[in-house]
Amino acid sequence: MPESLSTNEITEGILKGDRAILSRAITIVESTLEEDHALAADILDACIPKSGNSIRIGITGVPGVGKSTFIEAFGKQLTGQGKKVAVLAIDPSSQQSGGSILGDKTRMEELSRNENAYIRPSPAGKVPGGVAATTRETILLCEAAGFDTILVETVGVGQAETVVHSMVDFFLLLLLAGAGDELQGIKRGVMELADLIVINKADGDNKEKAQQARAQYQSAVQLFPARASGWVTKVETCSALNSTGIEKIWEMVKQYRQLMEEKGLFEARRQQQASFWLKERIEAELKHRFYADPVIQQAFRKIEPLVQAGKLSPYAASRQLLELFSS
Amino acid sequence: MPESLSTNEITEGILKGDRAILSRAITIVESTLEEDHALAADILDACIPKSGNSIRIGITGVPGVGKSTFIEAFGKQLTGQGKKVAVLAIDPSSQQSGGSILGDKTRMEELSRNENAYIRPSPAGKVPGGVAATTRETILLCEAAGFDTILVETVGVGQAETVVHSMVDFFLLLLLAGAGDELQGIKRGVMELADLIVINKADGDNKEKAQQARAQYQSAVQLFPARASGWVTKVETCSALNSTGIEKIWEMVKQYRQLMEEKGLFEARRQQQASFWLKERIEAELKHRFYADPVIQQAFRKIEPLVQAGKLSPYAASRQLLELFSS
Repeated sequence: MPESLSTNEITEGILKGDRAILSRAITIVESTLEEDHALAADILDACIPKSGNSIRIGITGVPGVGKSTFIEAFGKQLTGQGKKVAVLAIDPSSQQSGGSILGDKTRMEELSRNENAYIRPSPAGKVPGGVAATTRETILLCEAAGFDTILVETVGVGQAETVVHSMVDFFLLLLLAGAGDELQGIKRGVMELADLIVINKADGDNKEKAQQARAQYQSAVQLFPARASGWVTKVETCSALNSTGIEKIWEMVKQYRQLMEEKGLFEARRQQQASFWLKERIEAELKHRFYADPVIQQAFRKIEPLVQAGKLSPYAASRQLLELFSS
Repeated sequence: MPESLSTNEITEGILKGDRAILSRAITIVESTLEEDHALAADILDACIPKSGNSIRIGITGVPGVGKSTFIEAFGKQLTGQGKKVAVLAIDPSSQQSGGSILGDKTRMEELSRNENAYIRPSPAGKVPGGVAATTRETILLCEAAGFDTILVETVGVGQAETVVHSMVDFFLLLLLAGAGDELQGIKRGVMELADLIVINKADGDNKEKAQQARAQYQSAVQLFPARASGWVTKVETCSALNSTGIEKIWEMVKQYRQLMEEKGLFEARRQQQASFWLKERIEAELKHRFYADPVIQQAFRKIEPLVQAGKLSPYAASRQLLELFSS
């Protein structure tokens, strides 16, 4: 592949499903280099009309719950049905591309060799909750490249779930049986976001415990606030290790999608998400332009020490800077 | 009190320690009404030179850990030593001022009648993590009014701790014994923020369990990343109900402050926090000006539906809007 491709060549490559070009485009979109911004925007503008034809599934759970094994099993089942599956693995522990998620070479080994699957790890970057700032963009590029099932994996760290929820159609929470007080406090909010709760590791001695946990969670979800769609969070068990219980998970996704489409809510939710994304872009761009302005940079260097010394309030300082920016 | 006071009257009232005026000023600062913004900024500008002379202590813990009882006991001990204590209680469950925290009338009943204590509940507003957007501002106003010990209380909900940590000098985490896997996963990050972990409800049958938990946490904190100050997170037990173990908590705060001041880190941290706050103000103000611009409002109403329909990418749309804003 030549060092540098035109926007057209990249876009055409993506639309033909060329993985090397898709990967390169994602790298450009993830780039924080100033010179990559315009190219990234052009690629996205060109790809967006070809995007959207997929189901976007968020998968979360704490470390140790078996996310990779689950995605391996789930992904293999989907590719076996002829689906084209893109896995976007977001690694909150890594600040650099290709971080620890892929560092673990045994992760999703079979799936990564499957020609109908594409696995892309991303650094968490600076977005709260460890979800890559460019995950939405990556979803669109994968869709434009022909992937019809997008799995967005993230480690449950409290905030990530909310961010992932704002960019997927279906939200799947993986849990373990007997891991304590998930029903209360901190995790309650995350559980309410879930369209499906799957209790993993329902195998061997753990099978019965998983069934008990399922019953428990099933009563718990009855207490969650009712949704406009009428969907009540489903609870299933599976063993990702033995690939049992995986089929009914896809069934749940299909049922959910059908219900949402019948009620006109599938498209409505995507529209809301697009508005949300637009506002995020505006705010990112506003900040970017402000701090990139040489006049502001110079004034900021003078004003910041005054604020630090308590001689000027952040209010007065920001007003002064904003006046410079507007003029 | 007359309906409307001048900025000077309000500022003088605050500096004299007039609680009614302090409360009114906080309400102005918390107001989302456009006409209150300039007044709020003027009050803050006037108060900021008189602020800063306090120790700011963040107190967090999950519901049920006994935060109010603890603050009642801790606050009474401090006022007993002649300190002037302001308690800013942030209520993530309430979207309106005077929400559920104060709704529970028995909360901090004695402390609220103490003339050296001032208790102010605030709605969580829209800041991630449920910390009031204006808590920093409220801290400054209380300091200007002569309060030398500021307790910022928040319910532990995953994100709130990080936000509170960015505005206090000392961060205290309340825990219970035997509440499971706090050492792992989600809570690890919060524990690392804590300067002091206090295991509450060390009374009656629970005393021994609390001591065991203390030993356990004490080994755990040894594994946390080393800090520049050399401070290692301390672990104590107390019974807020019986007011036992409260004194040594204040001892810990004093030890910490002394260490930080010796190393020049106390002031350095406040300076960092001021920079952080300046950036927050700038970003809030940028957004505010953008969305308040009538030209933008009109263009936004036309562009948003195109983005929702997938006809225009959020990138192209935000660029178009930003061009209008700059011109």
